[in-house]
Amino acid sequence: MDDEQQDGRAVRVERDTMGEVEVPADRYWGAQTQRSLEHFDIGRDTFVWGRPVVRGLGLLKKAAAQANHDLDLLPDEIADAVVQAADEVARGELDDHFPLVVFQTGSGTQSNMNTNEVVANRAVEILGGELGSKDPVHPNDHVNRSQSSNDTFPTAVHVAVALELAERLQPAVDGLVLALEAKAEEFADVVKVGRTHLQDATPVTLGQEVGAWSGQLREAWGDVRHAGDRVLQLAIGGTAVGTGLNAPADFGPTVARHLADETGLAFRQADNLFVQLAAHDGLVAVSSSLRTLAGGLMKLANDVRWLASGPRTGIGELRIPENEPGSSIMPGKVNPTQSEAMTMVVTRVFGNDATVGFAGTQGNFQLNVFTPVMAHGVLESIRLLADACRSFTEHCVVGLEADTVRIAEHLEDDLMLVTALAPHIGYDKAAAIAKQAHRDGSTLREAALASGDVTDEDYDRWVDPAAMTRPG
Amino acid sequence: MDDEQQDGRAVRVERDTMGEVEVPADRYWGAQTQRSLEHFDIGRDTFVWGRPVVRGLGLLKKAAAQANHDLDLLPDEIADAVVQAADEVARGELDDHFPLVVFQTGSGTQSNMNTNEVVANRAVEILGGELGSKDPVHPNDHVNRSQSSNDTFPTAVHVAVALELAERLQPAVDGLVLALEAKAEEFADVVKVGRTHLQDATPVTLGQEVGAWSGQLREAWGDVRHAGDRVLQLAIGGTAVGTGLNAPADFGPTVARHLADETGLAFRQADNLFVQLAAHDGLVAVSSSLRTLAGGLMKLANDVRWLASGPRTGIGELRIPENEPGSSIMPGKVNPTQSEAMTMVVTRVFGNDATVGFAGTQGNFQLNVFTPVMAHGVLESIRLLADACRSFTEHCVVGLEADTVRIAEHLEDDLMLVTALAPHIGYDKAAAIAKQAHRDGSTLREAALASGDVTDEDYDRWVDPAAMTRPG
Amino acid sequence: MDDEQQDGRAVRVERDTMGEVEVPADRYWGAQTQRSLEHFDIGRDTFVWGRPVVRGLGLLKKAAAQANHDLDLLPDEIADAVVQAADEVARGELDDHFPLVVFQTGSGTQSNMNTNEVVANRAVEILGGELGSKDPVHPNDHVNRSQSSNDTFPTAVHVAVALELAERLQPAVDGLVLALEAKAEEFADVVKVGRTHLQDATPVTLGQEVGAWSGQLREAWGDVRHAGDRVLQLAIGGTAVGTGLNAPADFGPTVARHLADETGLAFRQADNLFVQLAAHDGLVAVSSSLRTLAGGLMKLANDVRWLASGPRTGIGELRIPENEPGSSIMPGKVNPTQSEAMTMVVTRVFGNDATVGFAGTQGNFQLNVFTPVMAHGVLESIRLLADACRSFTEHCVVGLEADTVRIAEHLEDDLMLVTALAPHIGYDKAAAIAKQAHRDGSTLREAALASGDVTDEDYDRWVDPAAMTRPG
Amino acid sequence: MDDEQQDGRAVRVERDTMGEVEVPADRYWGAQTQRSLEHFDIGRDTFVWGRPVVRGLGLLKKAAAQANHDLDLLPDEIADAVVQAADEVARGELDDHFPLVVFQTGSGTQSNMNTNEVVANRAVEILGGELGSKDPVHPNDHVNRSQSSNDTFPTAVHVAVALELAERLQPAVDGLVLALEAKAEEFADVVKVGRTHLQDATPVTLGQEVGAWSGQLREAWGDVRHAGDRVLQLAIGGTAVGTGLNAPADFGPTVARHLADETGLAFRQADNLFVQLAAHDGLVAVSSSLRTLAGGLMKLANDVRWLASGPRTGIGELRIPENEPGSSIMPGKVNPTQSEAMTMVVTRVFGNDATVGFAGTQGNFQLNVFTPVMAHGVLESIRLLADACRSFTEHCVVGLEADTVRIAEHLEDDLMLVTALAPHIGYDKAAAIAKQAHRDGSTLREAALASGDVTDEDYDRWVDPAAMTRPG
Repeated sequence: MDDEQQDGRAVRVERDTMGEVEVPADRYWGAQTQRSLEHFDIGRDTFVWGRPVVRGLGLLKKAAAQANHDLDLLPDEIADAVVQAADEVARGELDDHFPLVVFQTGSGTQSNMNTNEVVANRAVEILGGELGSKDPVHPNDHVNRSQSSNDTFPTAVHVAVALELAERLQPAVDGLVLALEAKAEEFADVVKVGRTHLQDATPVTLGQEVGAWSGQLREAWGDVRHAGDRVLQLAIGGTAVGTGLNAPADFGPTVARHLADETGLAFRQADNLFVQLAAHDGLVAVSSSLRTLAGGLMKLANDVRWLASGPRTGIGELRIPENEPGSSIMPGKVNPTQSEAMTMVVTRVFGNDATVGFAGTQGNFQLNVFTPVMAHGVLESIRLLADACRSFTEHCVVGLEADTVRIAEHLEDDLMLVTALAPHIGYDKAAAIAKQAHRDGSTLREAALASGDVTDEDYDRWVDPAAMTRPG
Repeated sequence: MDDEQQDGRAVRVERDTMGEVEVPADRYWGAQTQRSLEHFDIGRDTFVWGRPVVRGLGLLKKAAAQANHDLDLLPDEIADAVVQAADEVARGELDDHFPLVVFQTGSGTQSNMNTNEVVANRAVEILGGELGSKDPVHPNDHVNRSQSSNDTFPTAVHVAVALELAERLQPAVDGLVLALEAKAEEFADVVKVGRTHLQDATPVTLGQEVGAWSGQLREAWGDVRHAGDRVLQLAIGGTAVGTGLNAPADFGPTVARHLADETGLAFRQADNLFVQLAAHDGLVAVSSSLRTLAGGLMKLANDVRWLASGPRTGIGELRIPENEPGSSIMPGKVNPTQSEAMTMVVTRVFGNDATVGFAGTQGNFQLNVFTPVMAHGVLESIRLLADACRSFTEHCVVGLEADTVRIAEHLEDDLMLVTALAPHIGYDKAAAIAKQAHRDGSTLREAALASGDVTDEDYDRWVDPAAMTRPG
Repeated sequence: MDDEQQDGRAVRVERDTMGEVEVPADRYWGAQTQRSLEHFDIGRDTFVWGRPVVRGLGLLKKAAAQANHDLDLLPDEIADAVVQAADEVARGELDDHFPLVVFQTGSGTQSNMNTNEVVANRAVEILGGELGSKDPVHPNDHVNRSQSSNDTFPTAVHVAVALELAERLQPAVDGLVLALEAKAEEFADVVKVGRTHLQDATPVTLGQEVGAWSGQLREAWGDVRHAGDRVLQLAIGGTAVGTGLNAPADFGPTVARHLADETGLAFRQADNLFVQLAAHDGLVAVSSSLRTLAGGLMKLANDVRWLASGPRTGIGELRIPENEPGSSIMPGKVNPTQSEAMTMVVTRVFGNDATVGFAGTQGNFQLNVFTPVMAHGVLESIRLLADACRSFTEHCVVGLEADTVRIAEHLEDDLMLVTALAPHIGYDKAAAIAKQAHRDGSTLREAALASGDVTDEDYDRWVDPAAMTRPG
Repeated sequence: MDDEQQDGRAVRVERDTMGEVEVPADRYWGAQTQRSLEHFDIGRDTFVWGRPVVRGLGLLKKAAAQANHDLDLLPDEIADAVVQAADEVARGELDDHFPLVVFQTGSGTQSNMNTNEVVANRAVEILGGELGSKDPVHPNDHVNRSQSSNDTFPTAVHVAVALELAERLQPAVDGLVLALEAKAEEFADVVKVGRTHLQDATPVTLGQEVGAWSGQLREAWGDVRHAGDRVLQLAIGGTAVGTGLNAPADFGPTVARHLADETGLAFRQADNLFVQLAAHDGLVAVSSSLRTLAGGLMKLANDVRWLASGPRTGIGELRIPENEPGSSIMPGKVNPTQSEAMTMVVTRVFGNDATVGFAGTQGNFQLNVFTPVMAHGVLESIRLLADACRSFTEHCVVGLEADTVRIAEHLEDDLMLVTALAPHIGYDKAAAIAKQAHRDGSTLREAALASGDVTDEDYDRWVDPAAMTRPG
């Protein structure tokens, strides 16, 4: 900033309780935002708050102004201007006026004040006042009325997380699950070797194998949804320490109702506001549910790349789309790159969860001051998982093909079909047959017949791979 | 074992599909248990399976025998003997016959076989047969009938985890929450400084502060309960790869019903058996919910020790029980040792969760072979959290006392009572008053009167700390 | 891209082994970069590779061209053009031509090819050829000559990490350590209460307390430096699988020598090239050393904010700079915001380390395909730690002041001065004195005299707080 | 304890500064140990300190008595008795007298006092005194002379960790590395398919592949050794807060010298004693180095089981020992169980590292009170890694065999041999050949000849798999 000002860029004087500060003339932010910019030059390239949090802050300030107006705490004219300005923030029209990074005050105070300042100045402008005058709209006394950073910032974060879960992650996960289920249907009759301990085991259908992937994701998504309910509870109304000082009792519920109306999500004031400020376990719960989801995605991506391994000296039962040349040195190589991107995302989500879980323990007394880094971690995980699910669906799952020739060859070779003999001749004799085949390289049928315990007819009746994949 | 045998200890010959093995004559286990003992000498001191898992295995084998009998797969006499033997395992009468450690086959096959062997030999004994003869009860063909390690071991683990949650952790957490709620009630009228960012803030009651601790734990427990529902789903009936090969379709549901009858918990066969084998997300979900609970306990334990810090140069608003001399060199020192034990437990629970989360991602194809280490981590966390909650309740919470003199002194000093002035005179003037008091060491009242913006009468009417703790 | 093209933006046709692709006419990248852009739309906002990695890639391609030229594998003209183009990449002049994100092929192949394509096209341009013609400079045959992504990308990452450690992190950590050491010197004679278990303990000087912070950081930095040596080992020369196929034996050492000359860092070809491809333990080691450093920073930041807690009802022995208004609702509040930013950074570094450690285990056979996410995590941690150290130094440490009045009051109150009596009258009697003072609120001297075990003269001789801070 | 006493078990009255306590008559411990037993019933089954820590405490108390004697702070008779008693503790003769668990005071005070009490009582006994009389040997005034828990417990832990690294882990890792190197030698001439991205790549020898495993472990061990040097620095001499109050300046160095003489390890007093108490970064560093080692072991164990996957439908290039039946339901199945145990150990080591890293950040002021849980985590990791390395060496590595038939078949199929053509005909033409072969299932030679770019003679000269594994 300073450099630019020295470069002759126009500035405006803003003022807070500590004195005067110069800010760029073409920005709505005020003194506190500017101080934060100067004191927190940390990770600037990649840690400026993005759309979801700025949107959450805008939505919250709009709902707060509506509630203050409902409760006769803001006159019509000011309320209208604040609502209009906050709505512009929510819609993304003022994103350039939100320059702060994650690593700042641990309560998000500076981003709350950034919003208060931008909304106030924009409202002042709407009402024909002078930027920086705080007249007729004051960032604290009007925009932040009945609020504290300690309840607004966690509220805005909850709004952001809930919207990102609903609008970004859910469609991406749904898309992946549905694509897998379509493939499971397509492969319902492809009988193949099952594998446990990486070793040949009794048969499954490829449909069952693919269905286990989607089934795991469906169950994980249930956990995300349950955790997501926790962030529908909002801290708003708790103000500074949870008591709601300087806010009327109806303020929090009214804000929550406006937010619910605006977004269609079932936001409500939290039961215990002290808990909402002192801890952010809703974020912890969402984060760990995302970790579970990520675990399922790792299983999926790993299984896909192993089943597609080869093409000639691996398992090779699946074919994946050839999206790009695989190697800068090995001509013609194709790699399971979507699996690689996905599994890397998974490790990132695990790291984010470690951050969130750790930060979640470090509250003291009435406030946990790790809100920004927790919000960032959760939102980053949501974004990455959504992007990776979409990418994996489009560029891998929809193009999956079964190599039915290779699958049939493998099934033919599977010694663990012997398991079907055990109920008839006992575990010990069956084991002897499998071991014999393994030892001398014979087929299972050959070894079974050679054992004298099984006739050719028995074998045909008992060893039916397709039947072995059907329960009971 | 070998040493003991060389020492002349009596042995018996057992046999499996790989041949003969000598086992101690006074143990029921067979060849496969003995092989595992010899091949997995890893962490023997502390990683032998304990009561919960052995109990789970015993309960499962009992229910399986009942189900096989219900479905006419075991004759009365054998079923009765197996049920009796398994019941002895469940009740803990045969714990000395379960010598295996966590670090073994990743499917828990060896512990499943340990159970099969012990139950079979004990049943053989009950029926007058010869140990090691597998006659008339065979460990695989009878005790393991309709089962695979791949469905039984996860089932036994789920049973163990569900019982430990219900019988061990829930009472301990309930006890702590109730003790805190009693203290919150006791301290409901103690008005004190609130603290945010470790800095003096607007007032709360000590009851509200304590209530936030119990409130956070109650919400965390809700997450544990939700996750706990996932482990009521059982893999049983899936056998080797999820298809249920060699088990009748009714087997799994019947086993689950017997387990539910026996334990009073709502066990049921899982919807997707492939998922239950290929992943253990129920354990992952329980583990991460325990992490959230642990986070709440860390907040509690930290707040308690900070509020009790001093006794003279810290915060000193709470007094904790003096349970033991605190220092080997500083005479008369008393330390917040229950908080220290609790917070150390929390770090261990976080570590266990890291283990479980990592392991949960590493399944391949039809099986995740990290079940034992995941089960161990979850069960250890439950045990430690339960023990620590009980210890903290008994030796710390019930003895907590408020130092009301110090609390009153602190409240008197709190400059942030100024916040009550802001709605009347505006944020900026209020800030000027607080800053002036801070600068010259005056009281807030003195600075307020000196500002000319507030009269003595205003001050009395507006600045009422007790009223400031009551919402709206 | 597509949209822009539909918008009439000019395009150029590029071609790779899979066919033709349209790319923006004003970009040097080619077909493979374009394919990656289209297939990996994951985390685009914040996960595009930044300066350090692009610089590393540029430096590497320059050194590789020099080595190929040295070894007569590139003619002068092509070598010169490639060197010039790669140097432009290294210097940041072509950053707009590197649009790819972290989540791509796990070997970084696409970023290697992005570099090959950009350098090739730029070199073609320098030599008067036509963009996209690969004539006279081919991305694979010339720019990537003697190389594979599997050795180049890890090499470029090592170069990036080593430079960031040396140029970014070391000055920041040094600055913080020196600032702390200056403060330790300034506070060398301020005798104060020591605290263990958060409880009053025997005295230390404030200089000793501050010196422990810098001492811990110095030791942690030693670990970072040791780990940093591991990334001076380069994979270059290993090509696709570690054997060095298609590269002359002298190629790797020659590249390393050119890189060392260029950067002044002691790069060398790794001893075991197979290990460098199959694992990235140098990155794991750096990451965990950064975690240790972060742990020291958390201790520092926490101690600072606790010592500055209050201002009136906390410990209040330190005063921190008042950089900004602390609260949007509590007028006049000042918070330890630099500590908060720092501790949030620490939790992020822990998360990054979890990502890196996890990813580091997931290699298979000749390659670990989590290089990009590992590189990203390490580089982000370096960046954040450097920024946070600078911010904390400038905006907190240099402005730290001791509140000597409060410190003296606390020291006067410290019952643990009794420890000085123990060698003279024994632990048990000393304990009785401290307990008596604690019980009746008397001073330690009063209780000591009342015990009859200590005279006034003894007390003066034995209890000398300043002397108690000096060893032996 | 209480139950036993009510059962009529003999008790003795012990006394500390808080009063009288009954202890079992047949135990040497005193009042403080007994109080800890009663107040910390947490994880009793598995968290009682084991040999390494009790040994460390015994060695320390012995060295401390020697140093006190050297410095004329203990008379001959008492010093001799204390040395003798402490030596018995060190040698394991009094392990039954150390009943305390990890989760206790965070400074380890209670285990330090346990040692002081046991040594004092045993020394009293040696000198003919009465147990519990503290005459003529007092646990604090004599056994703990010149010491505090805050310096002794971390010192004892460092001694324990250093000894466990040297005596337990190093031989186990060495054994594994040597066994792998022997196998690498054995397999030096087995040329096989290399694999990157799980896809067929250019060839390596099996010796190179195995050598990469041992090479990675060797490098990781270098990190462990470097970190291990940090725990050779001892806190002793710092006493309560690092100042060394009540200890002569020579005490710490003298104790360190005695410990070095006794153990043969290069123990020395730490440079900055304040740092040693306020943080335990030596443990953090060792823990993270163990994590790196564990990462290498995971790679090894995973590669082994994948290479041995099959036996018929996986990769199947390696054969592992058949140690036990693999399945309770699938007769004749053999599983890679040593890999499974190893990888589970790895996840446990990662969890322990998460615990240690987290705990390491949580110090305040002059003390980090998470020493016990950190010590436990590091020692558990060492134990598990050592056991797992030995088990994996004996029961897996030494029995590894190459399936040379299958290896040769795979090599024959490997399309990436095409890479050898690229330097001769260019990357693009080589790619076309590989793609053609992939498309029509032809051999690489067939496709090469069909392309017209390569003659039969060229092919023989250029495509020599064995030569492709040799550098330059």
